[in-house]
Amino acid sequence: MKVGIIGASGYTGGELLRLLGNHTKCEITCVTSRKAKGKKISEIHPHLRGVNQLRFVDLESLDISSDTDFVFTATPHSTAMEIVPELLDKGIKVIDLSGDFRFQDVNTYEQYYGVKHKHPEIKAVFGLPELYRKEISNAKFVANPGCYPTTVIIGLVPLLKEGLIEHDRIVADSKSGISGSGKGLRYDTQFCMAEESITPYKLVGHRHLPEIEQELKKFNSNVKISFVPHLVPVIRGLSTTLHCFLKRSLDETRIHNIFTKFFKGEPFVRILNVGEIPRMSAVRGTNYIHLGGFQVDSERERIVIVSTIDNLVKGASGQAIQNMNLMQGYKETCGLEQTGIHP
Amino acid sequence: MKVGIIGASGYTGGELLRLLGNHTKCEITCVTSRKAKGKKISEIHPHLRGVNQLRFVDLESLDISSDTDFVFTATPHSTAMEIVPELLDKGIKVIDLSGDFRFQDVNTYEQYYGVKHKHPEIKAVFGLPELYRKEISNAKFVANPGCYPTTVIIGLVPLLKEGLIEHDRIVADSKSGISGSGKGLRYDTQFCMAEESITPYKLVGHRHLPEIEQELKKFNSNVKISFVPHLVPVIRGLSTTLHCFLKRSLDETRIHNIFTKFFKGEPFVRILNVGEIPRMSAVRGTNYIHLGGFQVDSERERIVIVSTIDNLVKGASGQAIQNMNLMQGYKETCGLEQTGIHP
Amino acid sequence: MKVGIIGASGYTGGELLRLLGNHTKCEITCVTSRKAKGKKISEIHPHLRGVNQLRFVDLESLDISSDTDFVFTATPHSTAMEIVPELLDKGIKVIDLSGDFRFQDVNTYEQYYGVKHKHPEIKAVFGLPELYRKEISNAKFVANPGCYPTTVIIGLVPLLKEGLIEHDRIVADSKSGISGSGKGLRYDTQFCMAEESITPYKLVGHRHLPEIEQELKKFNSNVKISFVPHLVPVIRGLSTTLHCFLKRSLDETRIHNIFTKFFKGEPFVRILNVGEIPRMSAVRGTNYIHLGGFQVDSERERIVIVSTIDNLVKGASGQAIQNMNLMQGYKETCGLEQTGIHP
Amino acid sequence: MKVGIIGASGYTGGELLRLLGNHTKCEITCVTSRKAKGKKISEIHPHLRGVNQLRFVDLESLDISSDTDFVFTATPHSTAMEIVPELLDKGIKVIDLSGDFRFQDVNTYEQYYGVKHKHPEIKAVFGLPELYRKEISNAKFVANPGCYPTTVIIGLVPLLKEGLIEHDRIVADSKSGISGSGKGLRYDTQFCMAEESITPYKLVGHRHLPEIEQELKKFNSNVKISFVPHLVPVIRGLSTTLHCFLKRSLDETRIHNIFTKFFKGEPFVRILNVGEIPRMSAVRGTNYIHLGGFQVDSERERIVIVSTIDNLVKGASGQAIQNMNLMQGYKETCGLEQTGIHP
Repeated sequence: MKVGIIGASGYTGGELLRLLGNHTKCEITCVTSRKAKGKKISEIHPHLRGVNQLRFVDLESLDISSDTDFVFTATPHSTAMEIVPELLDKGIKVIDLSGDFRFQDVNTYEQYYGVKHKHPEIKAVFGLPELYRKEISNAKFVANPGCYPTTVIIGLVPLLKEGLIEHDRIVADSKSGISGSGKGLRYDTQFCMAEESITPYKLVGHRHLPEIEQELKKFNSNVKISFVPHLVPVIRGLSTTLHCFLKRSLDETRIHNIFTKFFKGEPFVRILNVGEIPRMSAVRGTNYIHLGGFQVDSERERIVIVSTIDNLVKGASGQAIQNMNLMQGYKETCGLEQTGIHP
Repeated sequence: MKVGIIGASGYTGGELLRLLGNHTKCEITCVTSRKAKGKKISEIHPHLRGVNQLRFVDLESLDISSDTDFVFTATPHSTAMEIVPELLDKGIKVIDLSGDFRFQDVNTYEQYYGVKHKHPEIKAVFGLPELYRKEISNAKFVANPGCYPTTVIIGLVPLLKEGLIEHDRIVADSKSGISGSGKGLRYDTQFCMAEESITPYKLVGHRHLPEIEQELKKFNSNVKISFVPHLVPVIRGLSTTLHCFLKRSLDETRIHNIFTKFFKGEPFVRILNVGEIPRMSAVRGTNYIHLGGFQVDSERERIVIVSTIDNLVKGASGQAIQNMNLMQGYKETCGLEQTGIHP
Repeated sequence: MKVGIIGASGYTGGELLRLLGNHTKCEITCVTSRKAKGKKISEIHPHLRGVNQLRFVDLESLDISSDTDFVFTATPHSTAMEIVPELLDKGIKVIDLSGDFRFQDVNTYEQYYGVKHKHPEIKAVFGLPELYRKEISNAKFVANPGCYPTTVIIGLVPLLKEGLIEHDRIVADSKSGISGSGKGLRYDTQFCMAEESITPYKLVGHRHLPEIEQELKKFNSNVKISFVPHLVPVIRGLSTTLHCFLKRSLDETRIHNIFTKFFKGEPFVRILNVGEIPRMSAVRGTNYIHLGGFQVDSERERIVIVSTIDNLVKGASGQAIQNMNLMQGYKETCGLEQTGIHP
Repeated sequence: MKVGIIGASGYTGGELLRLLGNHTKCEITCVTSRKAKGKKISEIHPHLRGVNQLRFVDLESLDISSDTDFVFTATPHSTAMEIVPELLDKGIKVIDLSGDFRFQDVNTYEQYYGVKHKHPEIKAVFGLPELYRKEISNAKFVANPGCYPTTVIIGLVPLLKEGLIEHDRIVADSKSGISGSGKGLRYDTQFCMAEESITPYKLVGHRHLPEIEQELKKFNSNVKISFVPHLVPVIRGLSTTLHCFLKRSLDETRIHNIFTKFFKGEPFVRILNVGEIPRMSAVRGTNYIHLGGFQVDSERERIVIVSTIDNLVKGASGQAIQNMNLMQGYKETCGLEQTGIHP
């Protein structure tokens, strides 16, 4: 299959290229970038030297339909909404990695992203295979989830579905590697600012909050999440500590069983043992999500779960490829068989 | 005044030596260490080269009373309880940096530390000047607080005192630099394990939890804290994100004013503006605690506060010197006037 | 082919397991470790969860010949020399990753490693495919090179062979990630010592120096290397800056051509452009060596070349697998096709 | 004394402010910055909260002479040359931290910095107290040395003066913390590029090379330095490994004595023992330079010396204050008594 990547010069673009390079069913036929136009892929992505001889082109100069069966849009939000409709019109299947099409309610999008949506009529399937495998398999257009929501939603759904926790007192304290901020030059992601520093940001109202709540509301319509993201001095890796209050006394084995059962057969969800803590290095470079902890403080009626991914893979490009595999009827794990890089 | 440090070869010992080196009223007359016995201070603490020509001695071989007016015990827990009584008997004032004497209820200590307390009859003042300045000023023996409790207690007291938050649904998600784990060789604090990694640990039942609750119970006897500590790839620095649920709608300015008023005149507490996030580098090497955030999510009835210190200074040795200054009637800031090392 | 790994609990053992997991011709049938005996692989190597269900066994309790065609010894030096002879006697092919069999002159080994060699009669082929591909292909026993020597030798051979540089004034200033120090608990590889620090060590007489000179003497018998290794706050990655003095004026293109020609067809040597600097992330997790720089300071008659690898892959386990592929007649790149993890 | 800082919003400006905050003889009366105009110091330098209530002003709007006795120019190169003449004309003493006035030969400046010098007639004293204490004491205008030159010059002068090493085969391999690159947004100093990476740059022809050679030529007119700077994942700290070839056989104690004698009485030069390696943390935040190593490889006739500073202090702002103290007749160490921050 011929695959195009629009906005391929960023980190998620680089990961799509790295992972698709191992995919036996895909050939990348075009990569676009405004800034990198004319450059070879390896000039922008040094790890792809020798892997791919393509050059970046400008989207405007490209007749994409003639050459492409499937497109990933890895552009900043508010750009994707301008590109996607035409692609879909041409019969190209699309996965959008931006936030533009993740929301069922366009007002939520407009409120949190601060822009007017130009194509509220276009609807995407929310690309979380653990919840929507069937819908994704039948979709022509998938909105790939955000990195934080992937850890929070997967870590909470079994508890919410079973009605075990107080749905309106859930705390998700997330720590993301700096690559999650993208490649753009920013003062707070300069080495001297980010190193030796833990920086919470957007203490209230982060854009990923309504995305998390939208999905969790399907399990409890009154769910409320106290979500705080942090930048941490790590390149890749995202770990969320979920603090939940139990409605009734529960033992850890019971909870662990609920998770094991819920995610049975999931190719990329690994349930660690009670008390075992996920290590970022165990998932580094891979599409796995590791869920661990599951420890109960019975005196204080709370449970703690830790949910860990590589933000650029399961949190972005790997999940997108998992979705593509489903949409195309390929083996779900194709191109995603890597082992973590530890240490 | 002649000062001795027992257990001076660790990180907190090194910080006591660094800070007391700038203290105009103190002369360090003895430093003990079993392991470093016979070595010069600078062989163990390379930053103290040229500062101090003392050598470490073994505690057993030392006639401490003849030469010392004031002692810091910076030994591991369960060692301090064997040393302190004799010092007090000799009329020496003592500050203990271990956990041995922080608990009013010896059962709590024994449950969380897993050892039998040998001197439950000896009582210390809890050395948090922001709460106990007067008691400390009159004390002969002070138990210096833990690093995590310092950030959590100071960050929560104004809210609890005013009865503004749900006292049994408080989440304290703390991130500590690796120096907080001490100098001992451990697999998980080796560079290759700690770098590029965020590691929550002791998800339930950390030793600092009962210390936090003991102090907060003085403001609400039913307080319950959901406390999770994390190791983060930072040498120094401890930041706690406090997630609290409001009992009633409150505006940020009101809350900010409560904090400003509560800590008025405190020499080491700085209240940042609403929305301003503390930076670890701003307090690095200093005895300051920075409180920031104060943002309210009114839709979800929650407030987030961020509390940040240098774990080795306000979280240990600096706070101990602040306590010593109070006990001796010195200027409270003496020896603690450093500016943060940023970047 | 059935493969055993002796000493599989360390970092190089973990890398052998990671890379062989992708190797279509190999099945790992036994892994030994004294310390980890009885444990599952994933308890020691968290990234291998789900990859391999073997448990570590004790070497003594193992009848290795019945089950194994090929063995990697990844033990500390001086242990390998006790294990290898018996394996070879049983007709098993062996690659030793330690320093025990790298030296043609056993006296050099004994001088630099400070131990008596127990089997000086056993000779290995030095496993650097770029120099000894044919010999390796015919070998039953290969001594895998050290990490530093791999960068220094490959970076210098073309210049020495052509007689372009002063052979007795070569400076190799090497920087290694901390994983190169192995997994053992050491004070100077604790996070708080290694982070925010550049530490040269063994300024003279490092064990890799005679290994480097042994190989380079084949191109100039009087070669002398000024080699200084440094520990740097990086998990993986080894970069050597080679400072050479030119015998005569030379232009950069000419030198670049010499390198391009010398390494033509080498599957894992990439010659960057003149002035282009290798990035550690471009080779992270891969078996590639990137050579870059090639810049000439004509006024001072010197040239600088930069040579970069992943110390655990091309510097250890990947190179070992490359050697195994040659010894077995497999495709040289089998199991080693990964792309770098960048950023 | 009333002190002004022109270009005070960068890292060296922040360090000047931090250090002068402890200086008993100085009062900072104005700080300029084009970008930060109107902001409070602590908005730009978070560690200076509570230290200084000044606001940044625009240089143009400032009548500097009325209010200032002494000025530090901490502007980028080519800006300083426009500002300094007027200050000197007004009788203000000046220390320039840029490269504009470091060169005796203006042609060298113009060649390496790529700009035309506008005031070649203005001559400064080169502000390295260890070589020019007397001249600095009498100067009205001092050019503060670069960070790399400080480590290289101080580390080599005793050897060159005694004629012990080959003057035209000296290798200085330097590793600098990222703060040395300044605060400007650059792609290669973003966290994800700088972390887990060692990056040599300017392999030939770095701007600090002619500065190094200018000073060393005073000891040997034919000196030639092979200098390569590296960016390393460290915020502060600069370490240079000096590889020298001995003219004749020399023992380490003899060399160590030469250094000890040469720098006798120097308040900020510490000569470590033979074989002892400087730690960056030992000088972090301080004005000290630590020289260590001094090891001889007699077989290869070479010596290795390691020279380590905090690039922002002895490599910039601390050295500037040391120079100011000399120019003003203050105690040379005033404001510079800090102990290193270790770990």
